[in-house]
Amino acid sequence: MTSITLDPVGVVRSPITDRKGAPRQPDEGAPSATIHFDPRVRQALDGLRVGDRIVVLTWLDRAARDVQRVHPRGRTDRPALGVFCTRSPDRPNPIGVHEVEVTAVRDLEVDVRALEAIDGTPVLDVKAVLPPDVRDR
Amino acid sequence: MTSITLDPVGVVRSPITDRKGAPRQPDEGAPSATIHFDPRVRQALDGLRVGDRIVVLTWLDRAARDVQRVHPRGRTDRPALGVFCTRSPDRPNPIGVHEVEVTAVRDLEVDVRALEAIDGTPVLDVKAVLPPDVRDR
Repeated sequence: MTSITLDPVGVVRSPITDRKGAPRQPDEGAPSATIHFDPRVRQALDGLRVGDRIVVLTWLDRAARDVQRVHPRGRTDRPALGVFCTRSPDRPNPIGVHEVEVTAVRDLEVDVRALEAIDGTPVLDVKAVLPPDVRDR
Repeated sequence: MTSITLDPVGVVRSPITDRKGAPRQPDEGAPSATIHFDPRVRQALDGLRVGDRIVVLTWLDRAARDVQRVHPRGRTDRPALGVFCTRSPDRPNPIGVHEVEVTAVRDLEVDVRALEAIDGTPVLDVKAVLPPDVRDR
């Protein structure tokens, strides 16, 4: 299969500076963070508003890409599982999926609540979270 | 920002053969599909079972990467929005996010229900959907 090349559209700025500081799930205490977008995607942000819920896709650049099986949460007393059955950051293509709420928009900077990503993590894409009754975007 | 290179971990096999045939949302009639995984990620599938809910990340290779603003659902009577506020497949890094249910597992082939992706779409990653009360994966 052909390789794919991506250029990040932005970067996460966060008080989390290493994997130890990153909570495993957003309701386990992830802090607010700011996404700094590249000027070349300025138009793609048109219409983004405070209160919007978005899915942020990140490139987990501190993850191990050669790991295929993990002990869930590092508990070696439990059987190892394939990473496709887990949320482990370690996996062949470590893409993070984060559903967050927009709390501020300042030109190319967007603040979001409870993003579990390390400072400097590249952002690959952003999508709307559509409520079940809204199907027109 | 540095470019990132990905190798797909699999490919979607689906009766959908072009964008016209692809429903916009999974509950609008997406058919069942089969993901064919690359042998090199065999171990990453360990433990995947029928009935599991998974998030499949795809590379929407038929999308337009130079589009930053769209009229939602092609309705030119409505204002254009930045693609980051939409679910449009057209966007700088067209990564699809699909939550689906596993209906069969045969070695490197995994059947899933209601996947809105065109035949031949590369698969980048697969993750568990964890119910709110399960936090141990």
